[in-house]
Amino acid sequence: MSKKFVYQFSEANGTMRELLGGKGANLAEMTSLGMPVPEGFVITTEACTQYYADGEVVSPAIEQEILANIGKLEEISGKKFGDLTNPLLISVRSGSRASMPGMMDTILNLGLNDQVVESFAAATGNARFAYDSYRRFIQMYADVVMEVGKKYFEELIDKMKEEKDIELDTDLTADDLKDLANQFKAEYKAKLGEDFPSDPKVQLLGAVKAVFRSWNNHRAIVYRRMNDIPSSWGTAVNIQAMVFGNMGDDCGTGVAFSRDPSTGENVLYGEFLMNAQGEDVVAGIRTPNKIEQLKDIMPDVYDEFVYYTDKLERHYGDMQDMEFTIEKGKLYMLQTRNGKRTAQAALKIAVDLVAEGRCTKAEALLKIDPRQLDSLLHPQFDQAELDAAVPVAQGLAASPGAACGGIYFTAESCKEAAENGPTLLVRLETSPEDIEGMHAAQGILTARGGMTSHAAVVARGMGTCCVCGCGELKIDEHARTLKIGDEIFNEGDFMSIDGSTGNIYAGKIKTVEADVGGDFATIMEWADEVRTLKVRTNADNPADSAVAIRFGAEGIGLTRTEHMFFEPDRIPAVREMIISKTVEQREKALAKLLPMQRGDFEGIYVAMEHRPVTIRLLDPPLHEFLPTQESDIRALAKEMDLTYEELKAAIDSLHEFNPMMGHRGCRLSVTYPEIAVMQTRAIIEAAINVKKSHGFDIVPEIMIPLIGHVEELKYVKSFITKTADEIIAASGIELNYLVGTMIEIPRAALTADDIAKEADFFSFGTNDLTQMTFGFSRDDAGNFLDEYYEKKIFEADPFARIDQIGVGKLIKMSVELGRSVKPDLKLGICGEHGGDPSSINFCHRAGLDYVSCSPYRVPIARLAAAHAKLNEHKVEVESLG
Amino acid sequence: MSKKFVYQFSEANGTMRELLGGKGANLAEMTSLGMPVPEGFVITTEACTQYYADGEVVSPAIEQEILANIGKLEEISGKKFGDLTNPLLISVRSGSRASMPGMMDTILNLGLNDQVVESFAAATGNARFAYDSYRRFIQMYADVVMEVGKKYFEELIDKMKEEKDIELDTDLTADDLKDLANQFKAEYKAKLGEDFPSDPKVQLLGAVKAVFRSWNNHRAIVYRRMNDIPSSWGTAVNIQAMVFGNMGDDCGTGVAFSRDPSTGENVLYGEFLMNAQGEDVVAGIRTPNKIEQLKDIMPDVYDEFVYYTDKLERHYGDMQDMEFTIEKGKLYMLQTRNGKRTAQAALKIAVDLVAEGRCTKAEALLKIDPRQLDSLLHPQFDQAELDAAVPVAQGLAASPGAACGGIYFTAESCKEAAENGPTLLVRLETSPEDIEGMHAAQGILTARGGMTSHAAVVARGMGTCCVCGCGELKIDEHARTLKIGDEIFNEGDFMSIDGSTGNIYAGKIKTVEADVGGDFATIMEWADEVRTLKVRTNADNPADSAVAIRFGAEGIGLTRTEHMFFEPDRIPAVREMIISKTVEQREKALAKLLPMQRGDFEGIYVAMEHRPVTIRLLDPPLHEFLPTQESDIRALAKEMDLTYEELKAAIDSLHEFNPMMGHRGCRLSVTYPEIAVMQTRAIIEAAINVKKSHGFDIVPEIMIPLIGHVEELKYVKSFITKTADEIIAASGIELNYLVGTMIEIPRAALTADDIAKEADFFSFGTNDLTQMTFGFSRDDAGNFLDEYYEKKIFEADPFARIDQIGVGKLIKMSVELGRSVKPDLKLGICGEHGGDPSSINFCHRAGLDYVSCSPYRVPIARLAAAHAKLNEHKVEVESLG
Repeated sequence: MSKKFVYQFSEANGTMRELLGGKGANLAEMTSLGMPVPEGFVITTEACTQYYADGEVVSPAIEQEILANIGKLEEISGKKFGDLTNPLLISVRSGSRASMPGMMDTILNLGLNDQVVESFAAATGNARFAYDSYRRFIQMYADVVMEVGKKYFEELIDKMKEEKDIELDTDLTADDLKDLANQFKAEYKAKLGEDFPSDPKVQLLGAVKAVFRSWNNHRAIVYRRMNDIPSSWGTAVNIQAMVFGNMGDDCGTGVAFSRDPSTGENVLYGEFLMNAQGEDVVAGIRTPNKIEQLKDIMPDVYDEFVYYTDKLERHYGDMQDMEFTIEKGKLYMLQTRNGKRTAQAALKIAVDLVAEGRCTKAEALLKIDPRQLDSLLHPQFDQAELDAAVPVAQGLAASPGAACGGIYFTAESCKEAAENGPTLLVRLETSPEDIEGMHAAQGILTARGGMTSHAAVVARGMGTCCVCGCGELKIDEHARTLKIGDEIFNEGDFMSIDGSTGNIYAGKIKTVEADVGGDFATIMEWADEVRTLKVRTNADNPADSAVAIRFGAEGIGLTRTEHMFFEPDRIPAVREMIISKTVEQREKALAKLLPMQRGDFEGIYVAMEHRPVTIRLLDPPLHEFLPTQESDIRALAKEMDLTYEELKAAIDSLHEFNPMMGHRGCRLSVTYPEIAVMQTRAIIEAAINVKKSHGFDIVPEIMIPLIGHVEELKYVKSFITKTADEIIAASGIELNYLVGTMIEIPRAALTADDIAKEADFFSFGTNDLTQMTFGFSRDDAGNFLDEYYEKKIFEADPFARIDQIGVGKLIKMSVELGRSVKPDLKLGICGEHGGDPSSINFCHRAGLDYVSCSPYRVPIARLAAAHAKLNEHKVEVESLG
Repeated sequence: MSKKFVYQFSEANGTMRELLGGKGANLAEMTSLGMPVPEGFVITTEACTQYYADGEVVSPAIEQEILANIGKLEEISGKKFGDLTNPLLISVRSGSRASMPGMMDTILNLGLNDQVVESFAAATGNARFAYDSYRRFIQMYADVVMEVGKKYFEELIDKMKEEKDIELDTDLTADDLKDLANQFKAEYKAKLGEDFPSDPKVQLLGAVKAVFRSWNNHRAIVYRRMNDIPSSWGTAVNIQAMVFGNMGDDCGTGVAFSRDPSTGENVLYGEFLMNAQGEDVVAGIRTPNKIEQLKDIMPDVYDEFVYYTDKLERHYGDMQDMEFTIEKGKLYMLQTRNGKRTAQAALKIAVDLVAEGRCTKAEALLKIDPRQLDSLLHPQFDQAELDAAVPVAQGLAASPGAACGGIYFTAESCKEAAENGPTLLVRLETSPEDIEGMHAAQGILTARGGMTSHAAVVARGMGTCCVCGCGELKIDEHARTLKIGDEIFNEGDFMSIDGSTGNIYAGKIKTVEADVGGDFATIMEWADEVRTLKVRTNADNPADSAVAIRFGAEGIGLTRTEHMFFEPDRIPAVREMIISKTVEQREKALAKLLPMQRGDFEGIYVAMEHRPVTIRLLDPPLHEFLPTQESDIRALAKEMDLTYEELKAAIDSLHEFNPMMGHRGCRLSVTYPEIAVMQTRAIIEAAINVKKSHGFDIVPEIMIPLIGHVEELKYVKSFITKTADEIIAASGIELNYLVGTMIEIPRAALTADDIAKEADFFSFGTNDLTQMTFGFSRDDAGNFLDEYYEKKIFEADPFARIDQIGVGKLIKMSVELGRSVKPDLKLGICGEHGGDPSSINFCHRAGLDYVSCSPYRVPIARLAAAHAKLNEHKVEVESLG
């Protein structure tokens, strides 16, 4: 009996957030600040976890503690549960550490039954109000606690209104409502086979269990997964004496923000209704008043509220979102919390609060969720138009942003049409041949392929909006039509896609370029002052490099050379190289590619100036560069002066059962050293040229992918350094360069000490490392991962957020082993996790030197890196997924 | 200068094998035993590794040390290098720690030049002999040291014989040979552009370098890989004064074994030639005499040799393979080593040596290479017929043994023909539909697929000989012909295949069942007395189980339930289950499978009696059970009462990019719990039935594959135990069962402590664990692994021998983490490594409880486990590959 599971507001305070949840801690804090908060207590989050540990049972000890606290509440308020003279009515609300939509919200008026309602009517002198409260309670309890749908009760109301030929609920009389309450109880019994509980204690325990259960309902689980909230936290339950805003014209209720949550402007912002309960404000049947109008109606109450608002904002050092009720002229504060805000408002409020001396820069930075910045960096739909639109289908949100344009089904037609207006490229799936069309389009939409499909990867790289893998699309390229359900869209018809939600809309929705204004720059500057983790970018061309530098990238962590191979002017030479039967033939084809690759690297070096650039040698299996469709093979054979059979045989010989685990990465360099030699030549010659022409002190970082064994690294490195050293010697210029490796194969991590002896740097390729550590491919895992989330086997997508327990163990092991033999080993990450705040936090703790992410995520990474530094002292809750 | 790189025989002894190689250590040992060994010295293996470390250069220090030892040799022998009166002639031989064919063997007569040969002719009074020695030396030196092909010199001999119209080399006169020596030197200069070196010291250093170089020639590398010999060992060089068996009729040379190497019989076994050099015995131009005949020719020498033979066998406690030379009536011992022997001889010799008190049981066990036993356990080709046969092609040696039969191209025709005589099933690749034909055939031959192809896996499981992936086969199923090169074979033609070498022969080669006689049983008994590691088997049916028990299996470590699913009477229900759209449909199909699965397990339990049986739940992706060819799909659609399009769509929806990393293993149990429920039901009900009917105390071990996260295990285990407990409770019988997991995904190994909390046992699935730790799939790695061996990046096939550094680290980590939370956690291995001696040694050291391997490898594993126990104190050389 040592553990305390229930706290009266007066026993607690705002620091007890983990135990009491956000709502409970804030109620306690407001109580301790002397604000008028209706009395109550909190059942702790530990009681919730205990409930689950005990097999979804509230233990007798916890039950007794709850009832004992009801006793205290009765004492304080002078009211009693079930009392016929002065009945105690309470509200029951959930409240976890983090605000969580999707969980049970509120049960009001708990404590009413057939007897109590009578005396309540007498005590308030308002029978209509009393019975209305009662029928609302029965309805809410049946819905929330017993999971009988609300609709059955609404049907009864509608039926009565019809019989009485009235339109508004407010036209129902006290007797009508009393009748309805009886009908509701009968419906309750019909549906559940038991009487509606009249004992307030039974009602209370039922409600408490419902709150606990709601912690694990589907929506809550999904929300937690999306927001990195561990299921082990549990929810608290807040029990509070009722106050009524609907007892007459001297009553009211409202919600308000201490600043404008859309713009961040420093003005009180909110709404209220007189003679109403909270749900009426939300329901939208009556139009609420603006908060300023309260000044005219009840000036004293208004002034008091403004006073509390200011006090709370100063106290919490942040914009507050508050609920209040006025009962017979007296103001009660029902809730306060840090208010949700748009990304733009978040920036303005943070900057303003610092300027006003209400918080420090560090505190201000921590108020901004790095993930929120994403919406500032891409075009978005106009909110009003979006609100009015209904999606016609949904695919995977593969690359963020919004796009609107005429639909085209081939890269050529899309490119052509793009000269006259915005286009969307709509394909079954994209392939390298589509690159130009993809460049020309505002957005890309595909019917097939997952988050690592060609369309998704290329679109993210280009920062172009993309929705992919939408199976509902029936594309008829020949007829130039797209069918979704029964609806048919023709070439040129306008559609709109949202790469942040995966939603697909018919017609035009206006897009707006987000404003990356002065507050944004200020926040980024503050973040840079704080963080110690460097932020690089993944960029494959000068344009992306330039975007990344504008967003604050400090170097390139990953240049994927394969994307360059897909360019239409060079893919013939690439294919010639692949089809080559001898080293000489291959070298001849490579010689054609050399000047183009050298040009690529020169462009990137110039864009990056003095900043470091890591270039990865060719990684994908060679068959990716060859066509798979018979017609394409025939066309290519003709072009290459081969018979169809010859080319087909060559393509077949490259077939792999598991391409992800096949002949790629450094394995290509082992079997075809001449490819790596050409790339090395291009990298080094470009550096020499740019050093000569621009005077930049370039130190190219040559990265060898997919190393699993130190002997692979030794072998490949041997001819890279030989090639590089010869070129440098011949140039007469001094040039330093590094040769490092990806750590993306479990064996590399396990033997990182051996590998570090041969490597100047490690870059963690956490996409592949995650695939191989978990033993599933990202492209195939879609078939079962949804069930994994559903069944709570995984709580987070390991491809979005680093699995700190498994993959993280390998990373930490690599860091330790690597630095044990080379203390100054440079360490970075270049997987997609490099742009994920939770993963960035992990990288900071693991001791990495930098993260690298796509250009559009660089600002997010800068802020997340600052957060990581500021949160350094906090104990990390390790991810379960 | 502290390290000593050269040892005179008299400075060393037999324990210095690592430093001096086997040959050198034995020469030193014989010297110390007082036997007549020609004087000499050894250049150490460390000099060889130094040579490579220095960039293939013999350092001046080592060169000086060699020359200093030549000085000592001159002193001892009273002869001098290059001396015209009493010249020192020497032999140069390689000699590594382990006997290694493929390396440079011998250079004889080194020290001769134009001047020395004259005085040598005078000193021996045999000019013909002197010039013959000289021309042989030039030829050998040119071939071995300078890599000028032997054939150029043989052409010169042939030309001379033609000119002189003689047939035999022995008809060449001293002058002819002198002439030839001059021609040889001219040829040498013509080919190499330099004079044949006349300075004996130059000759010597050239020869030493050639020995060092030969350590890394192609054949040596291949041999090392096949025999687990690390390249870091290096080779020693043996320098010895020449003695001559060809100086007259009181001279001779021979080789002998102290026991018969074919049968193991305890009789001296060997051959000799009078007036001959060693190479003449081997060359086979003159027919050698049996060693017994020496008794008549030189009784004293014979008695002396028999005396040494006995002394050496007692000294080494093993059968010896010796070389000797008689020079002018005096016996010289040139070499002794433990003799190679057939598997059968190895057993007999081991048993006899113990009976004769020449070694202990432990020593006897260590004399037998476990891998050798394989040949005793499968039918083999008659050696004489095999020697005479020439392969027409070669594929992968996928499942050992030999088979001969008429070739058939479909499972049906093969099965039919098998009723009238032996058959071989020849297919492009096999699929589940071929099972019956595979069962009926003596052997299986395929054109496609690797070591884990369907044919290979099924054949190994059945113990049927299989050669697969032979690309040279052009199969025309329609015309019923097989074409190899230009040769055409028709249906019914006899062919013979060797699953231990991959060789394919035209026509019949007789096969012989190997004799598993009394010595075999004795050795196995001794092995069982010694070993602590248990040996289980992988068996999927009662027949295999019975074979394994006969071979001494102590239980089943892996029953793969998927093979049962392929049986023709149940695959329709399996497919119905896969195509099901609802849980109900799936359960209906599963209900059809239940009695069959229950029957499978009953059969296995009965065969295994009280022994433990581990049954793995369904593992492969479901698309493996569905056809891929259009015609098969059409046929199946008809059978299943579906349209082609429906079935095709269902099959397409199961397509995976990387099936190895897809929807399989426990992931199937997560998404379709009903499959695991049916299998659990079959496992438990069968155990109850057999317990009732036979009284065996069965404790089924239910194994969940592909676990990567403890939550997967928790989830799947929850309904397995629920199902099992309900059945057991209802049966009224007591039955224990275990639920454990494979450790085959890196993440499982990394989090083995979490997983152990939920698992009763771990079984390491090292096939998948190796694939995922290295990041390459076994099926695809064939495209590059050969180059890896060639380039010395890998020294061993990680799928054949556990990679102790990487994969081994994960295994050791799992053992430690697992036992840290559950000290009595049962640990085993069921990958193919379970039958590999080096891997078994690792498993013993890692603390595993058992290994599990295919039935035919059980005896090998028993002996290897005994070796592991006996070698426990030895420091393990960790594998590099």
